[in-house]
Amino acid sequence: MPDLAYLNGEIMPIEKAMVPIEDRGYQFGDSVYEYIATYDGRFFMLEAHLDRLERSMSELNYAPIARDELKTAIEELNHQAGYPRAGIYIQISRGVAPRNHAFDVKLAHQFVMTVRAVHELPKEARSKGINAITIPDMRWGRCDIKTVQLLANSLAKQKALDAGCDDAIFVSQHGIVREGTSSNVFIVSGKQLMTHPLTENILAGITRMVIIQICKKIGLDVNITLFNTEALYNADEVFLTGTVTEILPVVRIDGNGIGKGKPGSISRKLFKRLRERALAGEPD
Amino acid sequence: MPDLAYLNGEIMPIEKAMVPIEDRGYQFGDSVYEYIATYDGRFFMLEAHLDRLERSMSELNYAPIARDELKTAIEELNHQAGYPRAGIYIQISRGVAPRNHAFDVKLAHQFVMTVRAVHELPKEARSKGINAITIPDMRWGRCDIKTVQLLANSLAKQKALDAGCDDAIFVSQHGIVREGTSSNVFIVSGKQLMTHPLTENILAGITRMVIIQICKKIGLDVNITLFNTEALYNADEVFLTGTVTEILPVVRIDGNGIGKGKPGSISRKLFKRLRERALAGEPD
Repeated sequence: MPDLAYLNGEIMPIEKAMVPIEDRGYQFGDSVYEYIATYDGRFFMLEAHLDRLERSMSELNYAPIARDELKTAIEELNHQAGYPRAGIYIQISRGVAPRNHAFDVKLAHQFVMTVRAVHELPKEARSKGINAITIPDMRWGRCDIKTVQLLANSLAKQKALDAGCDDAIFVSQHGIVREGTSSNVFIVSGKQLMTHPLTENILAGITRMVIIQICKKIGLDVNITLFNTEALYNADEVFLTGTVTEILPVVRIDGNGIGKGKPGSISRKLFKRLRERALAGEPD
Repeated sequence: MPDLAYLNGEIMPIEKAMVPIEDRGYQFGDSVYEYIATYDGRFFMLEAHLDRLERSMSELNYAPIARDELKTAIEELNHQAGYPRAGIYIQISRGVAPRNHAFDVKLAHQFVMTVRAVHELPKEARSKGINAITIPDMRWGRCDIKTVQLLANSLAKQKALDAGCDDAIFVSQHGIVREGTSSNVFIVSGKQLMTHPLTENILAGITRMVIIQICKKIGLDVNITLFNTEALYNADEVFLTGTVTEILPVVRIDGNGIGKGKPGSISRKLFKRLRERALAGEPD
């Protein structure tokens, strides 16, 4: 079962897939992306990911790509790789042109993908929870668009690892808790959950959306509201959500133990429900 | 005289120069760059550009590249192209690795360049000045590092063109005037010049530095200080500085005429002095 790349219609080994140096994705970070995972060979939330991809493209004035064309390419790549648990990374850049800040909205896209087996989180991270640091959010102002403007995310993640922790949580200059380096953040206080509203400062996470749906279904109240680091430190439970992250409890932040210092019952229940839903293979 | 690319030691036509899709420059915008121009075949401010490039790399924890190696490569590319007025674009990315926010500081760089004839500004822009809009600065928090986190710059430039103007000037949420989409901003009030101090919110422009030196030499006072849009609109003269921009008067901003609505005497004098210095071919 090989790792493969897709490049503008052709499937090939990843190391053979090359883009021109004047791809605007390379020179301006003018690309959008998605990451979609399969469970038992079936995509989870494919349509929602494609909705978001199309929104990202539209916000940046990229010419659209037909949904059918996207789906056919993604499904073919997944099929050829044949992993039961595949992670498909999709990147679409505005196109290739001599370097110039201004752009032609009619450029031909570069449509690139890779497929690999999902790199599952270590079992211990799931069973014991992870340690995080908070970090001032110095990302650009349109984190709602899923672009490759990711250097701040990358530096924050590396800073967390260098500090002996597992991940970083972005906090605004006013102390508002935004999201992780590649995940959304939820806190639990009593039976009440809280998560950041959808603004230009966070990504509209697909797993975030699914968790909110599950909470509604099982009678847990999610308050979609701004909250600060004090609420974060004092929460009974904190967890991150994301496509590979799924639900990941955070048990220590900036050296402060969260709740009882181990994954809480609501995090564990929601993880179980999320996995059940993903494995059920229902359409979105 | 051909346009050429340089790719990790080899010189080739630009369209043959390709990078792997898992170059971190492509997937995370994890690249730094410079743009250096020649006058009469000689580089202007080469050492200053290389100082800045090395600083950008160091701020992002890239392994260094020896100055001699950089210079030899740049000079060879310039020599092979043979343009009397060449623009050399240099991009160094952290390297190639399977996609992961965290990174290995020992990755082998990707070292890429292009050379083309400088695309001179239209004569009319220089003689009549340009129109600009201001735009909220939504770039990331480390604009002092010259990275390819440039999507906000690109979108701002395009927005200016779509509005029938020539360029955009970034303004902070508190109304502080920062810089252009690929230039620094100076204003002139009486005989006093003002420009933004070197903080994490602007690039330390090489031309900005040269202009400050020239002003000192000819007895013009440059106040390096924060100033707001009111000061911008009410200035006698406004000009942008940059490697290709050189000095470019802005005569209308957000529909407000600046000074007499045409390039002022100080802008014209400084442009003349800058060109003289560039053509003199003195070492930095």
